[in-house]
Amino acid sequence: MTADIDWPAFAASLGDIPTETDRALVRQKSRDFYWYSPVLKQQLRGVSGDIVVAPRDEADVVAVVRECFARRIPITPRGAGTGNYGQAMPLQGGVVLDLIGLNTLHPIVDGVLRVGAGAKLGEIEARCKPLGWELRMFPSTRRTATIGGFVAGGSGGIGSINFGQMRDPGTLLGARVVTMEAEPRVLHLRGAEVNRVHHAYGTNGIITEVEIAMAPAQPWLDYAVAFEDFAALATFSDVIARADGIAKRLCAAVDSGAAAYFKPLQEALTPGESVGLFLIAAQSRAPFEDALARAGGRVARFLTEADIEATGAVPAFEFTWNHTTLHALKVDKDITYLQSRFPGPDYLGAVAQVVADYGDEVPMHLEFIRVGGEVACAALPLVRYTSEARLRAIIADFESRGIAVFDPHTYVLEDGGMKQTDPEQLAFKRHADPLGLLNPGKMRGWDEQSSAA
Amino acid sequence: MTADIDWPAFAASLGDIPTETDRALVRQKSRDFYWYSPVLKQQLRGVSGDIVVAPRDEADVVAVVRECFARRIPITPRGAGTGNYGQAMPLQGGVVLDLIGLNTLHPIVDGVLRVGAGAKLGEIEARCKPLGWELRMFPSTRRTATIGGFVAGGSGGIGSINFGQMRDPGTLLGARVVTMEAEPRVLHLRGAEVNRVHHAYGTNGIITEVEIAMAPAQPWLDYAVAFEDFAALATFSDVIARADGIAKRLCAAVDSGAAAYFKPLQEALTPGESVGLFLIAAQSRAPFEDALARAGGRVARFLTEADIEATGAVPAFEFTWNHTTLHALKVDKDITYLQSRFPGPDYLGAVAQVVADYGDEVPMHLEFIRVGGEVACAALPLVRYTSEARLRAIIADFESRGIAVFDPHTYVLEDGGMKQTDPEQLAFKRHADPLGLLNPGKMRGWDEQSSAA
Repeated sequence: MTADIDWPAFAASLGDIPTETDRALVRQKSRDFYWYSPVLKQQLRGVSGDIVVAPRDEADVVAVVRECFARRIPITPRGAGTGNYGQAMPLQGGVVLDLIGLNTLHPIVDGVLRVGAGAKLGEIEARCKPLGWELRMFPSTRRTATIGGFVAGGSGGIGSINFGQMRDPGTLLGARVVTMEAEPRVLHLRGAEVNRVHHAYGTNGIITEVEIAMAPAQPWLDYAVAFEDFAALATFSDVIARADGIAKRLCAAVDSGAAAYFKPLQEALTPGESVGLFLIAAQSRAPFEDALARAGGRVARFLTEADIEATGAVPAFEFTWNHTTLHALKVDKDITYLQSRFPGPDYLGAVAQVVADYGDEVPMHLEFIRVGGEVACAALPLVRYTSEARLRAIIADFESRGIAVFDPHTYVLEDGGMKQTDPEQLAFKRHADPLGLLNPGKMRGWDEQSSAA
Repeated sequence: MTADIDWPAFAASLGDIPTETDRALVRQKSRDFYWYSPVLKQQLRGVSGDIVVAPRDEADVVAVVRECFARRIPITPRGAGTGNYGQAMPLQGGVVLDLIGLNTLHPIVDGVLRVGAGAKLGEIEARCKPLGWELRMFPSTRRTATIGGFVAGGSGGIGSINFGQMRDPGTLLGARVVTMEAEPRVLHLRGAEVNRVHHAYGTNGIITEVEIAMAPAQPWLDYAVAFEDFAALATFSDVIARADGIAKRLCAAVDSGAAAYFKPLQEALTPGESVGLFLIAAQSRAPFEDALARAGGRVARFLTEADIEATGAVPAFEFTWNHTTLHALKVDKDITYLQSRFPGPDYLGAVAQVVADYGDEVPMHLEFIRVGGEVACAALPLVRYTSEARLRAIIADFESRGIAVFDPHTYVLEDGGMKQTDPEQLAFKRHADPLGLLNPGKMRGWDEQSSAA
């Protein structure tokens, strides 16, 4: 598709907008954590863009889009590349649009932050805390991930135990989006409209700025707790998740087979222990520790925010969500994982059944979140990978038990999530990217429509 | 019981601790809002203490207790007297212990406030907000009620949609309690121990100070919304209650039969409209109003905190919880009410059935709260009172439908709540009030045990 492009001429057309054409560097900016999946690792290993372009502001984005549209060059927008499904990998080459330069934080008004898509989540948190506000939710990659990448490629994470998913009304309040047209438009999506581009992998518009609701800040305590028995830990985590009076931000349970990979925690653990990871408001320290003692657990590691700042210790949240898998992969290349949600509210029985049936082949990892006002049990269990056929069989078995699986072993938008094209996202793509030049190959609904036409 | 007490000698024994013996003033300090209930109105109209004693600090409380114990004088502790069940009414006369002088606020540490029992909730809120903290929960009587009275006589209220009930671990963290003995002790209850005195009406110890977890403060918007149809309002309220991304503090729905009594809102309403009362975080304004428009409702009255401060308007929360009934009683003396909880989570059908079956005899009033991590539907419907027999029949019918009724037409601790004596509260009374001199006649379990002995 891009074989006949004159790249030096293209780069020149962008004036002083920074570009990068070094093959190794372009390749590096063309990847994410797709290698979490042995399936994607095979499929995507050869993927690379032709050039990285790094706009400094929205006007630069518009200029890049104009030049690309004129030359029919595909654009794959990208933040820090911390996704796990090849979301930001340019399947058809072309421009990798590195948006980390768009990192302006505007003043917070009534708890609403307007911020450039490229701002790092860690920096947003650090800069807003002294002003009395903090992120409502963030992925385990908070240190490096950008807000735009989280909006375009993520769905929830730490904080979802309070605020549910990003798609729920109220957290993602607005987005500025540049369209891929001869004369690019800057659209301002508000309210439910934002879900046209949220979790669309940048396939139907380039998000340059978002408005997000923040949470009022408070001091958090960082806990790793240990239990001899995973079932006791799961029950305890469920109790904390449902305890309306215990303020928390993270509630995760990892069984001993997965916790054994947590190198930075090994000193604090006895082999065979399962580990709970919690962020608990300082005011809830006593009731949390009382409940822990009653449940038969112990505090394995306790850190204040100041402790983490001073020592550089790995925070509890960097053992949760997709970081659980990362710790395992650092030790064992044959590990992969699933993303799923147990049917609730009586999910603990189903969890116990999976643990009993799969044992060490599927080390369990639970994340408690809120869905529609109720506590729900997400699971990102590790899988000791043997073959794609076996992986698919496990997924099929999970689904037969009523466990919803959000397949992380596909780069296709629909196949990872809802299994069907979001009609609003598809309609928006027709409107905002009529030639299908944005992150091509990721939205199956578009490709099917195009090949049918 | 107190007929042979030499009151002037008793008052003299207290030294400079303020006392009041004027009959009218003592009578005034011997009542609460018991007259909400036509049943209690009959039963309690003659109740009065013999003397009001107003300690200035805990040492004064100890001194009063010592003198009372020596003379076998009953003590009924009291805050602002905003209860509805005669909680603080001295059935056997004696000392009314007015605790509003114990109103010290200590510095907030990590979101935990230590505060004298007599501090007014409105003052706590006003003084903590500039420090970045606010009350987690409060009753509709926030303006005048004390924290000690709320702890001893209440259970939840505004804020319970986030933090559940006060009995849940994490909100009420500690209490100092003076025992009723020859040599009074000051006990420091912590953790689950606090439920020994929480919602015990002061029958088993005198609460002098509490420790409560606060919420990080944020600006709130005050909404009265109007719907032509109560079912649509109930559905909308349920949607908001379950919307994890819409930050709120109050979520109440009142049908037109009850809303017609809201004098201060009549200008904003069309006759026949049902009214929803909401406190919504400023950051959630847009998603809340979007959802309202989709549900077919309209904003009848909108106020910021600054508007309320400037105009003295009646805030939304003063139309909710027991204030709903108060507005009705101001207009119609034959109104009373019920306290109940619909079985959930599919409570809206049961609500609709009650509305259909009772019509205007039981104007509906819903309060959405959180119970055990899930949204639940409490109801304090008005009842057009005809006779106690009819009232009891309605209660029995509610119970036959699986609706839990917390009878507000009794001053007996057990009969209003769990229908059985809390064994921990009873055990604590044996320990802390061996002669049964604290607020006598309110704990049935104690009286039964005493008459059996």
